[in-house]
Amino acid sequence: MIDNRLNPQFYIIGVGPGDPELLTIKAVRIISSVDVITYPSTSQEKSRSRQIISKYITEHHKELAYNLPMEIDPSKAQAAYDQVSKEIITRLKEGYSVALLCEGDPFFYGSAIHLYLRIAGKFTTQVIPGITSLTASPAAAGLPMATRNEIVKILPATLDISKLETELETCEAAVIIKVGRHLEKVVHAIRNKRLREYALLVLNVSDDDQRIISFKELDRVKQHQYQPYFSMILISRHKRAVP
Amino acid sequence: MIDNRLNPQFYIIGVGPGDPELLTIKAVRIISSVDVITYPSTSQEKSRSRQIISKYITEHHKELAYNLPMEIDPSKAQAAYDQVSKEIITRLKEGYSVALLCEGDPFFYGSAIHLYLRIAGKFTTQVIPGITSLTASPAAAGLPMATRNEIVKILPATLDISKLETELETCEAAVIIKVGRHLEKVVHAIRNKRLREYALLVLNVSDDDQRIISFKELDRVKQHQYQPYFSMILISRHKRAVP
Repeated sequence: MIDNRLNPQFYIIGVGPGDPELLTIKAVRIISSVDVITYPSTSQEKSRSRQIISKYITEHHKELAYNLPMEIDPSKAQAAYDQVSKEIITRLKEGYSVALLCEGDPFFYGSAIHLYLRIAGKFTTQVIPGITSLTASPAAAGLPMATRNEIVKILPATLDISKLETELETCEAAVIIKVGRHLEKVVHAIRNKRLREYALLVLNVSDDDQRIISFKELDRVKQHQYQPYFSMILISRHKRAVP
Repeated sequence: MIDNRLNPQFYIIGVGPGDPELLTIKAVRIISSVDVITYPSTSQEKSRSRQIISKYITEHHKELAYNLPMEIDPSKAQAAYDQVSKEIITRLKEGYSVALLCEGDPFFYGSAIHLYLRIAGKFTTQVIPGITSLTASPAAAGLPMATRNEIVKILPATLDISKLETELETCEAAVIIKVGRHLEKVVHAIRNKRLREYALLVLNVSDDDQRIISFKELDRVKQHQYQPYFSMILISRHKRAVP
């Protein structure tokens, strides 16, 4: 305990897409060993990342839930990151080891990046990679993404439709992330580029309510039924091999 | 045991980039429960994926090591995949559950894809995602890859230099994989696109001999010193925050 306090450690831990079994051995070991666990949480909903690791929380852990505004107003988000970093740094200065939980992987589109940039220069920091939905979704859908010299692009659905279309022209495979309310735009881009037969919509991957929807099915139903936040579209020329 | 034999299961398991602690809980559970473990192995070197999971192998496991030629001659590779699938299918027909090990993640540039396509249509198959070096390398290097609406491209170093340069022009971040003997070409593309300050070479990520090399360092040493097979180049506009 004393050694730990002389050299407080900051960990940023990828906890995977949702299924607690997709945690790594390393994530579990570190979570079990630290003093403080910190995670984003809003007043509306309980923390998803805390839920993923909940069975490893014991009474010796201190918890620090922090509130982050949605990223629409960058100036507000920056002030919030400043405030959260300050609170984490206070714990580290007191000598506590701190694990920051991050859904998926910390360095791919995670808000943990903003806290990393504010804290890692000041304290010994270790980033533990996590299973990202970029790989969990193809695995769940049975859709191989790329072999040999094929290009895969990760494209946020927030991009302009013309940009999306241009990028889709010059790759064999793509993962379109953050689909949510941009579903209609993305569907248009995929239709325009004649990629319908190669595309799958994956919702809530690795959760109990996971769904995998082909574009044929999507045409049959009202699109607005399928716009959860945790959705992505996979595009791949490879075949699914479903029995 | 009898139930298992009536419904043999085929698992394709991502075992991560090298560090056994980057195995998922799910991978360990399934590996511990199956009858047969199968993995690629050459006469020259012991199987890397078997090494990653070696502490979970018990005397009840049967092992099936298979030899795959390097992918340079596609016709030979196809015949080899046919042969390996046949052997796996024989075990499944005998009623044994089989876990095929795959370094990193199965569906991103893994040779497991070829076996998946031959077997998954015939037997109940589950693909378990693994930590890929695409996320393990940024985590090890302390280099955040992307936030918000930034594009990340996965570019095999085997591509033409002109294609590489064109793709690098229209993204914020990239992971250039399979660098190996293409290092010099990739370095040229990065120089031509003035991306040197954003690029890092990562060797043998998560292994004992992991190395992270900036382009400044790379200029100082003879390039041919750094061409191991397990190498990738990360390009990101985000900062590393190293103490």
